[in-house]
Amino acid sequence: MLIIGELINGMFQDIARAIKDKDKSVIQKRALEQVDAGADALDVNCGPASAKPGSDIRWLIEAIREVTDKPLCLDSSKPQVIESGLEVLRGKAIINSTTADPEKLDILVPLAKKYNALLIGLTISTKGIPQNKDQRLELAAEILAFCSQADFPVEDLYIDPIVLPVNVAQAQMQGILEAIREFKVISTPSPKTIVGLSNVSQGTKSRGLLNRTFLTMALAYGLDAAILDPLDKDLMDSLITAELILNKNIYCDSYLDAYRRK
Amino acid sequence: MLIIGELINGMFQDIARAIKDKDKSVIQKRALEQVDAGADALDVNCGPASAKPGSDIRWLIEAIREVTDKPLCLDSSKPQVIESGLEVLRGKAIINSTTADPEKLDILVPLAKKYNALLIGLTISTKGIPQNKDQRLELAAEILAFCSQADFPVEDLYIDPIVLPVNVAQAQMQGILEAIREFKVISTPSPKTIVGLSNVSQGTKSRGLLNRTFLTMALAYGLDAAILDPLDKDLMDSLITAELILNKNIYCDSYLDAYRRK
Repeated sequence: MLIIGELINGMFQDIARAIKDKDKSVIQKRALEQVDAGADALDVNCGPASAKPGSDIRWLIEAIREVTDKPLCLDSSKPQVIESGLEVLRGKAIINSTTADPEKLDILVPLAKKYNALLIGLTISTKGIPQNKDQRLELAAEILAFCSQADFPVEDLYIDPIVLPVNVAQAQMQGILEAIREFKVISTPSPKTIVGLSNVSQGTKSRGLLNRTFLTMALAYGLDAAILDPLDKDLMDSLITAELILNKNIYCDSYLDAYRRK
Repeated sequence: MLIIGELINGMFQDIARAIKDKDKSVIQKRALEQVDAGADALDVNCGPASAKPGSDIRWLIEAIREVTDKPLCLDSSKPQVIESGLEVLRGKAIINSTTADPEKLDILVPLAKKYNALLIGLTISTKGIPQNKDQRLELAAEILAFCSQADFPVEDLYIDPIVLPVNVAQAQMQGILEAIREFKVISTPSPKTIVGLSNVSQGTKSRGLLNRTFLTMALAYGLDAAILDPLDKDLMDSLITAELILNKNIYCDSYLDAYRRK
């Protein structure tokens, strides 16, 4: 399970302010907290208020690199912002993200190849958000076909089914879970799968419970990676326990502590 | 989801003492607590210390029937104890349980038919506990074939994959989950599926967390029923939330309370 910490994002007020004031200490503290809590990689997003996202993402990357070598997940809807980050990043990158649109794939797949980066592919296009499992599978197939033609290694591709909030798309949740399973069988070798977890509970009043319940179900369906809040201890307990049940870590009475010390 | 409360069982000291002393109030209190917490049915088991299980189960049934009309799940490895209970039970019965052994099926399937009872079929036989998914499916097929020949309605059959403790059978857990899904496709109409949940955490130090994580995963695999502790609020929260994600109940901000009031 690849755990990507979601907390370095300019949509959070303290991060937005740190970016504006160029206050490294806030960013570095949040980076280390997430790594200590079990994050394998860190998402980096300048947020909607950034006027110069290209230089802001470089500053964030430099700040984080002073305290950790973990892979960084460059998160922007603008390919040029991601490229700007890739140019300065030392170590592994995850590109977050391409859509199924050719104009995005045309830029981001070659970039991922050039920088030997992992690539997140959202099953979404300019035509809109998918409404059911079949539309998700079609969009995944388009991304897979493009990657295959471009000789991008499918094992480095993480397909995201687009998790919608349960309070607006309740009837789609089962299809989203099934898509996670079926993405793995539409190509050999299989792509990996990822979710942006917190979306599932957006606008609800039981966020933690919904997040950890959905994550547990998605893990049962074979999920490989998630962008989530690793400081949510109950969420991490559920994740560690689900992986234990799936035989990914060896049982011992203190398996929660053992996993966290690993 | 059929929730069967597990707490009226002579393996618990207070219940064993109440059976011995013929103290109805303890039994009736435990019955009502479980119903209030969301149990749809109540398991009734005299426990290993009962010298006269046939008359003890009748006494338990009579005591419970004074306070609730919920279906009762007559739990004994001895068919004659179950029959003794069926003879006095008013209302719906669940027979817990037959194995795949012909000598059990020969008695319990006709009894289930006679009393219009639901029947739990364990995928186990005198040959031993199944070691993998295929053995579970084979035993389920044997139970299904017997029921079909005896004209017992398959929709009233609940197949139990035999949940083993994660600390002794970690490598089998994924196969147990997959068996839950596959039991549904080996027969048309499909049988239902059930687990004795607490087994999964037997002998471990994180019982609640393991129980609710496994239950959430099993629900994602299509589980229809579970024998569990409905007084474990965190477990019930997980169950309600998993069912919400699976679109079994309609979302509202106070969905946990709404479910409990239903």
